[in-house]
Amino acid sequence: MTTLHPFDPITPGEIQLAVKVLEAAFPGVSLRYKKIDVNEPLKREVVPYIEAERLGKPLPAAPTRLLQVLFHRLDNGAFYKALLNAGTRSVVYAKQLPKEVQGPVDADELIEIEQLCLSHPAVQAEIAKLQLPPGVTVCNDPWIYGTDDPKETRRLFQCYMYVVTTDHPQNNHYSTPCKFSPVFDALTHELVRMDYLPGGVDAQGTETQPWKVVETIQYAHDLLTEPLRTDLKPYIVQQPEGPSFNVQGNLVSWQKWKFRVGFNTREGLVIYNTTYDGRNVFYRLSVSEMTVPYGDPRAPYHRKQAFDVGDVGFGITANQLSLGCDCLGHIKYFDGYRSDSKGNPVQLKNVICLHEQDNGLQHKHTNYRTGAATVVRNRQLVVQMICTVSNYEYIFAFIFDQAANIELEVRATGILSTVPFDNEKFGTTVPWGTNVGPGVMAPFHQHMFSFRIDPAVDGFKNTVYYEDSVAMPEDENNPYLVGYTTEQTVLRTSGSASTSVERHRVFKIRNDACINPITYKPVAYKLQTSPSQMILAGNRSFGYKRAEFATKPIWVTKYQDDELYAAGEFTNQSKQSEGVEKWVKRNDPVENEDLVLWHTFGLTHNPRVEDFPVMPVERVSVMLKPDGFFTKNPALDVPASSQSFNQSTLHPEPAVCCAPAKVKL
Amino acid sequence: MTTLHPFDPITPGEIQLAVKVLEAAFPGVSLRYKKIDVNEPLKREVVPYIEAERLGKPLPAAPTRLLQVLFHRLDNGAFYKALLNAGTRSVVYAKQLPKEVQGPVDADELIEIEQLCLSHPAVQAEIAKLQLPPGVTVCNDPWIYGTDDPKETRRLFQCYMYVVTTDHPQNNHYSTPCKFSPVFDALTHELVRMDYLPGGVDAQGTETQPWKVVETIQYAHDLLTEPLRTDLKPYIVQQPEGPSFNVQGNLVSWQKWKFRVGFNTREGLVIYNTTYDGRNVFYRLSVSEMTVPYGDPRAPYHRKQAFDVGDVGFGITANQLSLGCDCLGHIKYFDGYRSDSKGNPVQLKNVICLHEQDNGLQHKHTNYRTGAATVVRNRQLVVQMICTVSNYEYIFAFIFDQAANIELEVRATGILSTVPFDNEKFGTTVPWGTNVGPGVMAPFHQHMFSFRIDPAVDGFKNTVYYEDSVAMPEDENNPYLVGYTTEQTVLRTSGSASTSVERHRVFKIRNDACINPITYKPVAYKLQTSPSQMILAGNRSFGYKRAEFATKPIWVTKYQDDELYAAGEFTNQSKQSEGVEKWVKRNDPVENEDLVLWHTFGLTHNPRVEDFPVMPVERVSVMLKPDGFFTKNPALDVPASSQSFNQSTLHPEPAVCCAPAKVKL
Repeated sequence: MTTLHPFDPITPGEIQLAVKVLEAAFPGVSLRYKKIDVNEPLKREVVPYIEAERLGKPLPAAPTRLLQVLFHRLDNGAFYKALLNAGTRSVVYAKQLPKEVQGPVDADELIEIEQLCLSHPAVQAEIAKLQLPPGVTVCNDPWIYGTDDPKETRRLFQCYMYVVTTDHPQNNHYSTPCKFSPVFDALTHELVRMDYLPGGVDAQGTETQPWKVVETIQYAHDLLTEPLRTDLKPYIVQQPEGPSFNVQGNLVSWQKWKFRVGFNTREGLVIYNTTYDGRNVFYRLSVSEMTVPYGDPRAPYHRKQAFDVGDVGFGITANQLSLGCDCLGHIKYFDGYRSDSKGNPVQLKNVICLHEQDNGLQHKHTNYRTGAATVVRNRQLVVQMICTVSNYEYIFAFIFDQAANIELEVRATGILSTVPFDNEKFGTTVPWGTNVGPGVMAPFHQHMFSFRIDPAVDGFKNTVYYEDSVAMPEDENNPYLVGYTTEQTVLRTSGSASTSVERHRVFKIRNDACINPITYKPVAYKLQTSPSQMILAGNRSFGYKRAEFATKPIWVTKYQDDELYAAGEFTNQSKQSEGVEKWVKRNDPVENEDLVLWHTFGLTHNPRVEDFPVMPVERVSVMLKPDGFFTKNPALDVPASSQSFNQSTLHPEPAVCCAPAKVKL
Repeated sequence: MTTLHPFDPITPGEIQLAVKVLEAAFPGVSLRYKKIDVNEPLKREVVPYIEAERLGKPLPAAPTRLLQVLFHRLDNGAFYKALLNAGTRSVVYAKQLPKEVQGPVDADELIEIEQLCLSHPAVQAEIAKLQLPPGVTVCNDPWIYGTDDPKETRRLFQCYMYVVTTDHPQNNHYSTPCKFSPVFDALTHELVRMDYLPGGVDAQGTETQPWKVVETIQYAHDLLTEPLRTDLKPYIVQQPEGPSFNVQGNLVSWQKWKFRVGFNTREGLVIYNTTYDGRNVFYRLSVSEMTVPYGDPRAPYHRKQAFDVGDVGFGITANQLSLGCDCLGHIKYFDGYRSDSKGNPVQLKNVICLHEQDNGLQHKHTNYRTGAATVVRNRQLVVQMICTVSNYEYIFAFIFDQAANIELEVRATGILSTVPFDNEKFGTTVPWGTNVGPGVMAPFHQHMFSFRIDPAVDGFKNTVYYEDSVAMPEDENNPYLVGYTTEQTVLRTSGSASTSVERHRVFKIRNDACINPITYKPVAYKLQTSPSQMILAGNRSFGYKRAEFATKPIWVTKYQDDELYAAGEFTNQSKQSEGVEKWVKRNDPVENEDLVLWHTFGLTHNPRVEDFPVMPVERVSVMLKPDGFFTKNPALDVPASSQSFNQSTLHPEPAVCCAPAKVKL
């Protein structure tokens, strides 16, 4: 038996163990499992362990291996959270959660609701009214219900219905939405209500009418009417000597970096214990939450607000990546595991990929006197995960480079969430959406991400501050009025902060105990933020109250175990968030402390018609960069770029006819 | 003889022709040439020509080929600008410019001043005082003088002096600046003044003292004391079937795009006449200006403000690119030509490169029910130029993709402009700069770029507007307070505008004459800006007055021939700019007009010690994206990503020892 590392993801055996322990704890009771996963290990136990690893010292006792289980009792429907000790095979606690707490949707539940919906007589009656032509059917996407009633405690799903015009496995049903939408109770399986969706600008619902045949806007290559491009030539990345990385279990070493690839069903990819050249940099990096509030004010769309981490989970929805499609070059894949509703382990194959890429130049200088140049290319290591949350896709990549930068790149792609809209008449539009096809409109929405940064800049006690660039006052020190300087503001107690383009505000994480011998300032990493519009929903709306992390771009909290998710532990049908906005209110001291920095960034996405039927990637990026952490450019020792190494090809010049033009003198 | 296209760069024959025509016009007068280049062709003549090309109609008469010459008369020093007609070989005009107008620095002049400085007795006397050890010498970088006196009309250079500790061709003299700095008159060759630079925080100059030996912080691989990394494996891009682009002369065709690669000595790379699938998109794209004001308030640094386009020229300073160093894969190079001071053509070899790159995924969707996925990669075409302006490097790339986006990517690298600073004592710092080594400090500065966009969105009459995302009012149309919409503001007359992250402001260029049949709105391209801090110099400073383009991120002017440069035609020692800020004051109508959109963006660069001795790239990007220009995603017809096409390699799994951990049940 190989020993698990504290940061290793759950194993199939641990899933089976959890089931066994719980069955013993609930004898004779049938359980429905929503989640069986590792519970984050206790930091106070982990730090001595990873510090011993880093320093090559004898390892202390391994931190307690904890497992977390969310489950329903099938006898009374009660919802539980249990914490298990995998070492002692015992229950630490198993607590029943309040009635209003809804767990995340799970994969089996989604299929159950889909089938429940399609087979329900009331739904079938509506489908019959569509009078669909032969071969045309209906499908549905069960949606997380959202919130508009503080007293609601049922577990609800809103099923959005679509016409399916072909049985091709990649038919784009989002092009042909229906105007009825049943709501189901997921526990009783009752039809709660049949919503009729508006066809016009006002919220007035529409009785189901026979379906008018319209063209489906397809994205699958098989279904396109236009021919494919034939002039794209192969572009092959070859790494004849193999990759520059080394992987042992989940430990990755590459170009002075070391880190562990973590995986859990909620956040998916997590980067643990990042060191550079043996120095601590970050304890844990992850996308802790995201919310997608929609701007369409018409019922029932006012409830459309996905929390793709808390309501579903990026681990659960991570794609099985395939060689030569999702990345180029030499690729290492990592698998994950989840539990199904019966407690069986399900392998999540190839959910994370690791590969190198070339990103142009890293640095260059030409001495103009001698013509002598130093050119160094920018090799990067990419750790990537792609998540499909129903219609949408997110591509998350942590990108490490040789100059000690870490980039979190997010790409949004996939299919817009659409609604039916009677737009036959020329000029018919709504002010909160874009017509993307006949009878179909894509409402405005926002994607708000929370990047959770648990730093360890040369140690586990750090300080966050921001630095603004400001003109110097007009005085005797600035006689020509061109001087400018910086102003520092230290976040001494837990709280929030704003970004500022006008002041070129930069956030930094420093270690006051380590002074850089060149700059004479504490060693630091800076966070290059992605300044973004914050959530637009009004502050008395549920949309706002459920996602307070999305109201400010920067939050700093004192580290506490179990404070991992920006909007709180349970987001599904939440009435208000229980996350960073609560934790900062403790007014904890965070100067020279074990702190966590949370960055909210995002996209206000007012769809273009070009984003349909599948969206060209929209890219957002934030970076962590050393700033006085080293004494000079840490990439100086990267070998020069050379033709013998890179083997590029010169474009042949045309033989005749295109000689340089000559002007007769 | 091949016929030149109106957008073709100058040929050696044309340089010779210009000299011949001018010698005839100034018989018996010796001329010193600063610049011989094509003059931008007249748009009213060009448009019918390129429209005939686009539509495959018979070509009208070629537009007048105009050449522009800047020169000094050596008999009286007078500075002239001449416009020549290359077709008729005649002078259109040759006008003497006012005494206060200074032309750009030229390559020959730079070397002259360098040599003048080093051989001057007063400079040699200062060098003697340094009492340098054997083998240690001094060099200088002549700097554009800048401005602090409204009455100054001499042509001045400020020479910054450096100790040279090794004769290696890549010695980093910027690590060892001297504390004296002579100023020369470039026309009379007189020493105007010896400036003594401060060693401390105040502006008090320092008498020259014997040089204290300090370590030079080197970047060249030969000169590093630490070993190079040995674990970076080759990463080779192979294009066995050749590139997907086609080049005929300067006309490039790639993936539905067509454009012409232009080149001139001032802007360097220019992209002309961009069409997509036969539709007009942009008439002309270029980086029209940039300014680098420094924030160090101490004389003489208050005058440090480079205009790298107007004072020198990106064409003049463009690097000779070399195969397998500056880009990977299959590469096409373009050459340029400049004149030397005697009027001889000088070839600028390989100053522009063209190659394809893979940029991850373009779009992806997985149908979660069927698991069927469409994956399309993001192939891009890169047109790149790298400029060395003394210490600094800029990498400019126009990046075209298959979803009809154009990105302007700027990477800043090279060496910081440094100053001497007595920082031996622990803790000695200045509030406007960063210590980067012993005795050397890098002052804060800004890089402000002006991206000039001359649009042709489905035609040459366009309208610019901006669109903000705003919460809907709390009324009966927004009962749940989650609705949001957009507000449009049309720029009806020439003027400026601000960016706004808080309002997610997006700028769009539309053609009101072409309505999109799906969205029912005018076809448009949007400018994804890079919201940046504007210039920090006070508004009564020369730094501000000379660079008013850098005070606002957006300017819209009505097109006029000869309005090409954001800070005006002559920036060297300018007292105030004569550019966009003047042109907008005409209050020209710009709705449905031939207009130009100028975007100022940049970097406030407060150096990190990691930016020394050579700076890891700092990347800024702006994008032009279709927004209702097409009726759906224009990249749908790009073939799927597949292993047979991409030939990736699977990382081998370890044979033994690392089997998945098992937990005993």
